[in-house]
Amino acid sequence: MYTENQSVIFLILLDYWASPFGMRARIALREKGVKFECREENLRDKSPLLLQMNPVHKKIPVLIHNGKPVCESMNVVQYIDEVWSGKNSILPSDPYQRAQARFWIDFIDTKVYEPADKIWSTTGEVQETAKKDFIEALKILEAELGDKPYFGGDNFGFVDIAMTGYYSWFEPFEKCANFSIESECPTLMASAKRCLQRESVVNSIPNPDELFALALKLMKEYGV
Amino acid sequence: MYTENQSVIFLILLDYWASPFGMRARIALREKGVKFECREENLRDKSPLLLQMNPVHKKIPVLIHNGKPVCESMNVVQYIDEVWSGKNSILPSDPYQRAQARFWIDFIDTKVYEPADKIWSTTGEVQETAKKDFIEALKILEAELGDKPYFGGDNFGFVDIAMTGYYSWFEPFEKCANFSIESECPTLMASAKRCLQRESVVNSIPNPDELFALALKLMKEYGV
Repeated sequence: MYTENQSVIFLILLDYWASPFGMRARIALREKGVKFECREENLRDKSPLLLQMNPVHKKIPVLIHNGKPVCESMNVVQYIDEVWSGKNSILPSDPYQRAQARFWIDFIDTKVYEPADKIWSTTGEVQETAKKDFIEALKILEAELGDKPYFGGDNFGFVDIAMTGYYSWFEPFEKCANFSIESECPTLMASAKRCLQRESVVNSIPNPDELFALALKLMKEYGV
Repeated sequence: MYTENQSVIFLILLDYWASPFGMRARIALREKGVKFECREENLRDKSPLLLQMNPVHKKIPVLIHNGKPVCESMNVVQYIDEVWSGKNSILPSDPYQRAQARFWIDFIDTKVYEPADKIWSTTGEVQETAKKDFIEALKILEAELGDKPYFGGDNFGFVDIAMTGYYSWFEPFEKCANFSIESECPTLMASAKRCLQRESVVNSIPNPDELFALALKLMKEYGV
């Protein structure tokens, strides 16, 4: 449980190494250069602290700042951007650009999330539909990206952070489901590679081989 | 289609009278005292303007500000709050309070939305489950409300606006599915009544009898 003693630790991230949502929080904290303690959760035996800090959804990531929890990955990213506003702005300052960024976050968290989850956890027709829907969503995002280096224009921004969690899974997805994202969405992939090379990202995402090994292990457990 | 001529109109809301999501945008604009033109959409024969302004989701509400669209209801509300920031703040200024408000918006748009949609459009066991899930979500919100007059504390805020669209549907829901929200969630209902009496709200929501009549008509069409 969270006790007085623990509250001397300024910033704790309840996390899981392979989660694209956990990665978003990690990347945002590192973009800001903020020191934090990352606590790895066992998602099959969640800690009392996680259950206490996110009683509604019981999900990672949770950012505990001075003892108070912030839940839901893009909400965490936005909170980080508002609290440490001095360095590397994540959201643009213009209200219209902010609204556009938030629109695309909603899009990613429904239209990319839903098929992505099925790509490695299903087979046959369900998997084929998931691949089709996934590529369709990525093509819409690619059109939005246009010829900008990042969704955030010249800067790695809010939408880029949301996508980078998924970018880290692209290679494992391709191997699990035998398809090529790059041949379908070359422009998006060029931006993805740019994002994956950032220092904040390199330090926040696992090796694709480790993610693929995890996917294989889970597929076996689920009998896929 | 959207032409140069139309762009002289400053602010257009593409809307549908009975939509709890459209209501959110209307209420936010009236809280700010901003003049706008409300254009009623036929959701079975959407206007070329709606399809042009929200090509991804093709849904109302869309706020067109100086010719540029903002889509998704709570994104519209947040945009309104940021552009017309001088009057009646909708989001709190403290980053932690903002994060909490955004957390509850996500909760409402999944855990309230999903069962709410089934309360009037299904029967039997599916409807019973929807009622149970709906009340369960409302009880979680009621616990969050506590003894505050509004979710926004002393002020009608972001979460209140999100909920008020649903509050307008509470009476029709109760009639459609033969249950009492007030007996399950008396404290939430007291706050709901407070919200429904606000000038911005009275001018933005239809009569419950009209909503009930619409629900009956749709139930008949869907063969419920």
